[in-house]
Amino acid sequence: MNNESKPQSTTAAPRKVPRSKDNDYAPGAATARRDFVQAQTGVTLEHVGRYSFDPAVLPGNIENFTGVAQVPIGIAGPVRINGEHAQGDFYVPMATTEGTLVASYNRGMRLLSESGGVKTTVVESFMQRSPVFKFDDALQAREFGHWVTANFEGIKAAAETTTRVGKLSHIGQYAIGPLRYLRFNYSTGDAAGQNMVGKATLAACQWIQLNHPDHPNFLLSGNIDTDKKHSQINTLLTRGKRVVAEVVLKDEILKRIMGVTGRDLFQARQISQAGAFMAGSANNGAHSANGITALFIATGQDVANVAESHAAVTYAQLLDNGDYYWSITLTSLIVATYGGGTGLATQRECLEMLGCYGQGKANKFAEICAATVLAGETSLSSAVLHGDWVSSHDQLGRNRP
Amino acid sequence: MNNESKPQSTTAAPRKVPRSKDNDYAPGAATARRDFVQAQTGVTLEHVGRYSFDPAVLPGNIENFTGVAQVPIGIAGPVRINGEHAQGDFYVPMATTEGTLVASYNRGMRLLSESGGVKTTVVESFMQRSPVFKFDDALQAREFGHWVTANFEGIKAAAETTTRVGKLSHIGQYAIGPLRYLRFNYSTGDAAGQNMVGKATLAACQWIQLNHPDHPNFLLSGNIDTDKKHSQINTLLTRGKRVVAEVVLKDEILKRIMGVTGRDLFQARQISQAGAFMAGSANNGAHSANGITALFIATGQDVANVAESHAAVTYAQLLDNGDYYWSITLTSLIVATYGGGTGLATQRECLEMLGCYGQGKANKFAEICAATVLAGETSLSSAVLHGDWVSSHDQLGRNRP
Amino acid sequence: MNNESKPQSTTAAPRKVPRSKDNDYAPGAATARRDFVQAQTGVTLEHVGRYSFDPAVLPGNIENFTGVAQVPIGIAGPVRINGEHAQGDFYVPMATTEGTLVASYNRGMRLLSESGGVKTTVVESFMQRSPVFKFDDALQAREFGHWVTANFEGIKAAAETTTRVGKLSHIGQYAIGPLRYLRFNYSTGDAAGQNMVGKATLAACQWIQLNHPDHPNFLLSGNIDTDKKHSQINTLLTRGKRVVAEVVLKDEILKRIMGVTGRDLFQARQISQAGAFMAGSANNGAHSANGITALFIATGQDVANVAESHAAVTYAQLLDNGDYYWSITLTSLIVATYGGGTGLATQRECLEMLGCYGQGKANKFAEICAATVLAGETSLSSAVLHGDWVSSHDQLGRNRP
Amino acid sequence: MNNESKPQSTTAAPRKVPRSKDNDYAPGAATARRDFVQAQTGVTLEHVGRYSFDPAVLPGNIENFTGVAQVPIGIAGPVRINGEHAQGDFYVPMATTEGTLVASYNRGMRLLSESGGVKTTVVESFMQRSPVFKFDDALQAREFGHWVTANFEGIKAAAETTTRVGKLSHIGQYAIGPLRYLRFNYSTGDAAGQNMVGKATLAACQWIQLNHPDHPNFLLSGNIDTDKKHSQINTLLTRGKRVVAEVVLKDEILKRIMGVTGRDLFQARQISQAGAFMAGSANNGAHSANGITALFIATGQDVANVAESHAAVTYAQLLDNGDYYWSITLTSLIVATYGGGTGLATQRECLEMLGCYGQGKANKFAEICAATVLAGETSLSSAVLHGDWVSSHDQLGRNRP
Repeated sequence: MNNESKPQSTTAAPRKVPRSKDNDYAPGAATARRDFVQAQTGVTLEHVGRYSFDPAVLPGNIENFTGVAQVPIGIAGPVRINGEHAQGDFYVPMATTEGTLVASYNRGMRLLSESGGVKTTVVESFMQRSPVFKFDDALQAREFGHWVTANFEGIKAAAETTTRVGKLSHIGQYAIGPLRYLRFNYSTGDAAGQNMVGKATLAACQWIQLNHPDHPNFLLSGNIDTDKKHSQINTLLTRGKRVVAEVVLKDEILKRIMGVTGRDLFQARQISQAGAFMAGSANNGAHSANGITALFIATGQDVANVAESHAAVTYAQLLDNGDYYWSITLTSLIVATYGGGTGLATQRECLEMLGCYGQGKANKFAEICAATVLAGETSLSSAVLHGDWVSSHDQLGRNRP
Repeated sequence: MNNESKPQSTTAAPRKVPRSKDNDYAPGAATARRDFVQAQTGVTLEHVGRYSFDPAVLPGNIENFTGVAQVPIGIAGPVRINGEHAQGDFYVPMATTEGTLVASYNRGMRLLSESGGVKTTVVESFMQRSPVFKFDDALQAREFGHWVTANFEGIKAAAETTTRVGKLSHIGQYAIGPLRYLRFNYSTGDAAGQNMVGKATLAACQWIQLNHPDHPNFLLSGNIDTDKKHSQINTLLTRGKRVVAEVVLKDEILKRIMGVTGRDLFQARQISQAGAFMAGSANNGAHSANGITALFIATGQDVANVAESHAAVTYAQLLDNGDYYWSITLTSLIVATYGGGTGLATQRECLEMLGCYGQGKANKFAEICAATVLAGETSLSSAVLHGDWVSSHDQLGRNRP
Repeated sequence: MNNESKPQSTTAAPRKVPRSKDNDYAPGAATARRDFVQAQTGVTLEHVGRYSFDPAVLPGNIENFTGVAQVPIGIAGPVRINGEHAQGDFYVPMATTEGTLVASYNRGMRLLSESGGVKTTVVESFMQRSPVFKFDDALQAREFGHWVTANFEGIKAAAETTTRVGKLSHIGQYAIGPLRYLRFNYSTGDAAGQNMVGKATLAACQWIQLNHPDHPNFLLSGNIDTDKKHSQINTLLTRGKRVVAEVVLKDEILKRIMGVTGRDLFQARQISQAGAFMAGSANNGAHSANGITALFIATGQDVANVAESHAAVTYAQLLDNGDYYWSITLTSLIVATYGGGTGLATQRECLEMLGCYGQGKANKFAEICAATVLAGETSLSSAVLHGDWVSSHDQLGRNRP
Repeated sequence: MNNESKPQSTTAAPRKVPRSKDNDYAPGAATARRDFVQAQTGVTLEHVGRYSFDPAVLPGNIENFTGVAQVPIGIAGPVRINGEHAQGDFYVPMATTEGTLVASYNRGMRLLSESGGVKTTVVESFMQRSPVFKFDDALQAREFGHWVTANFEGIKAAAETTTRVGKLSHIGQYAIGPLRYLRFNYSTGDAAGQNMVGKATLAACQWIQLNHPDHPNFLLSGNIDTDKKHSQINTLLTRGKRVVAEVVLKDEILKRIMGVTGRDLFQARQISQAGAFMAGSANNGAHSANGITALFIATGQDVANVAESHAAVTYAQLLDNGDYYWSITLTSLIVATYGGGTGLATQRECLEMLGCYGQGKANKFAEICAATVLAGETSLSSAVLHGDWVSSHDQLGRNRP
């Protein structure tokens, strides 16, 4: 049948997606929706319907559950990591449909490992919600700002009534006209924490509204938390975790594995840095998003946070002895090892194979993310320099058209 | 067993991930790797190993295939779209693990549909590769730029020898010091085209190097294509597709479905716009990345392109009759309906249910993406304003900690 | 004579600009340099040599003093200001060579005054110097950051040994790889304070180097103070003074003076905001730099700080009663009423006519700057909308070519 | 008398600044205004009234002329320039009140000259006006864009009816929602050209409105010309002139004059580049605004254009022989040698001493600006590295407070 014509048939009112009042997460509910899709569009969701877990686990993760996307996972590694939290050799599950990607990261991991491993450090960790309070004029808004500073303990107590885990660290203040944007910074344990800090900040704002003599109006987001968006404020002030991966590369190993020298990489870096600066890029490195996304899909992260998480600053130096020092700083990596999608079937297995499932593992997982990203940076940058970038995609990617 | 201790055991040299020389995409190869992971880490990849397709289809999509991530899909919609390419009522598959997301987009789709539908338009479409040529000084580089302009036809012919589909449209030129960055802009049919344009541009650069009297050196990327990275150059000059979704909302419907008025939305928009501008955000709207990511995972897009694709500019007006005009322009949406992961089992089914699989469908799919994003914008912005943002997450998201 | 040929005559070694060992600020020293210029280039500095003050006052302001630029000053105003520090009707001296500028600001000032005056508020005030400390790895750098926090009082004391006026308020910390950028924020009284904070921060860094167990190396600027440069960090975190000017405009007055309505201005604002966001602009308003520059030249400010000072965020609302609320927030206005060029002959007179010369006047002067900027915003925005922008330049500007 | 109290006395309606109906540019008109200021504020504009030219030349440059700002000029140089247009040794007039500035640029000029001179190249030159056309929806706006492309010759002819000098080169198009922003790019001869292109673009827009079947409405600026504002679009696409200055520095000369090595400068450059990238800076160099502003004031440029003109990209390499290659690219330098303030008394003399007054000189002047900027970059960067930055300000700047 012609599945093209179906959606256009708008003569009758379109039907709502069926939901089960009794238990919308029973297997039958998903089946009913697949049948509905077939009836509406003529398409049989044969493979979408093939999942290996009980949908009863899904409340809190999805509505109108209908089946699954099966995203191929390849294993890259091992990568040797000498972190604070991640220590040892790791095999990294990467979920992607882009040919070459796993092979390229794998090559980078070999380089890092043979160079003695990658050093990783989580240097800062905060999740934000940024309400905005409205006043009659800038003077009132400024005085409100002082009041917030003076009443921090009360605000903090109000926020923390809503969560066992989240702790309010500090509140940034940003003035525009009669508005006062507040950027609440929380530690959120091993959860990414966006919902946690939203709930806590709402409680805090309600406390402020009640206790401040003007009882000011607010919006729970003034859009400077920049949720699901890259921003310069994230690059500067961190969102989620700020993580550094560092390595010192010997020319001998670089030449053997990558076919390039540190000197040439460093010269090329000057060019790519100038390009990134001119372009107004979120990242003066190569392709952090590739590694982050593949890890995020595999491990049940909120993949939309790639928007924020791919921001990065590369800093490198050619050392006096000719070695190449290479670091990448992910300024706004948002990860969780608890809550969200981390407990689902395949996602949990992938976290477990990294030793990263559950409480107390978020920093370790962040370090693995950063190490993975650095592996990909070394591989792609070398390929661009060496000229095998296109040929490897020709070989491993389909390049069909 | 303690899966923590395994990765740290680095006394012996770590073992390489096993590969099959005969056929690394035979089912046994994946099984061998899962067994290897179990041996190395103690973790059984029970669910990861449960996929419903023949891995023989995977060359060109992944290396070291080991299994799949099963990402839950919910169906949102229908959303009525009055586009050039997408016309009718669409049920949208969204792959996510974030509670509330599908429900929120669903609510927005209802609003758009009851308002007569969303108008969608692809206004521009180009994929880029940006090599950089190096000279002794800025004067040489400038003269080279003139040569490139004068020799466009030869360059175009050389590029297009490598592809049946890709057509070189124009080359932007950007001068820094002795460097000339060239930004090659191609149309790429229904493929996203990053590999296609990489290959074509390599051929073009080799042609330039051969034919230009100085035989200048080049890097295939000077980092202003900003592949897998947000950048202002994308926002300005488009990467992938530039797509607009527009709707006119009546107060009656807004109030009924969202509990807010156009006037209040517009007032809040002034605040969120000022915030986004101050924060240096990639998007002055709400959360385009959520809808884009869920659609991308479901339909086999290169999900790492969320980095570029989430950039957006919202433009709204309160009309004289009180109606609320709302548009969002996605400036760098990278999508495909052909090639990459689009042909895989679940991914193809999801494209098919949208009537978007295969050739001639990329613009239609881009329009559906934009409509979906606008639905999410209306729902989240209303929730922030109305105050039910947190409560809905409490109800539909787990908010565990 | 052909003044073209002279500079090209490079056969002989060029001669150094003459300096007087005895007193390079005696009138004769300047005369000698003017004679030298004439001998070297054939150009008589007739007017440059016509100044009305004793060059003996110039040490600390200029080297190789040769004469003056005579920049025309026009008086705009009065503008009624209802600030914290500036209260009353002010006549504003503007030094410029751009026709229409004074007339346009004058028109805006009339609008603001007839609307009851402009409200002005200094909401924040800090000057920065941003050294960077270098370590072996990110972990060391992070630990150093904690040490800085723990030793703030010692650092502050060391910094403040160098200045009676400057007070260290807080130190921002920004991590990249093995680097720790510190952003020292000082209050600097009525001086702009760049030199003051440079000296204080050097003392602080030397104290840190001495007292920290690693005795780490540092650069006195890591380029995030963004001295003489616009930056997003300034927009977010303030450099110099953050000042707001606000006004509520009645339609009757707007129509009479500007020929436009608040509704039309607000509609146009949506368009100019979207444009500024897409363009990656430092200012989503119209032309703050014009007013700031003219005031800066007239009053002896460091005019190069226009680079930072022109950054601004406009926030406006159409009120329910149809009035138009308009604010502009200058996020990094760098001004002084003491030190620098403020005490020179014409510069001091211009500060005095504003009641802004000397100590205790910097906030007042900042408020006058903001009020002036807002006047210019209303005038130019109205002209663009009303269509008399070009015609007024035709009449008042020369538009010669 | 207490000049504080005067402005606050707002009991009576403030008096308007007096204007002469007969001839507001007669000397008496300025005297009347100075008397008025004295009467209103108690301040005698003694020095402001001391100018050496006939105010009859001022129409087109200023309104309400009252006197002048006398800004001290110091001579730096000579700097040897090996440009296309500027060739030879130049003495550079710098108008500033910031101690150390002239001395620092002078030192940099000596370095450049002893290194064989600075190479300068104008690589692009366009002035912009960016109207925006409004439509019912994005589709209409897109079709309008095609119409504009198809009707370029008619638009160009209409624009060029208004100017002998300005030539329309090309029109960039930028789509947001139902809007089409057009960025008209003109060559403007030796004028900066903002008014010229405003007038030409108005004529073009009126022609479009008349000839396009929809007769669409437009605003003459949609705020992406970013007049008097830094923006990323300027950095990418040039505003005014894009000029490069380049030099190769020998270690011997660097050490002798600056006390630093190329290797150390290059290492520090990695740090300052990372800082500038993180900060979202308009310039990854040091302090272009200082040199540009001082030259602009001296030579009658529109000094407010420092906002745009200070944007810059530094690109450097440590060469294999240890020499240090250093370039700076000013991406949006707006200069004139004709029109505006260039013909005024002291301003013309300063242009003449550079051999840059009048027609055919704008490129030469732009090259001198770039050379001056590079001189300042070398001096300040070395001072920061060498540690004499603060001490030199102590010696040459007053550092009073």
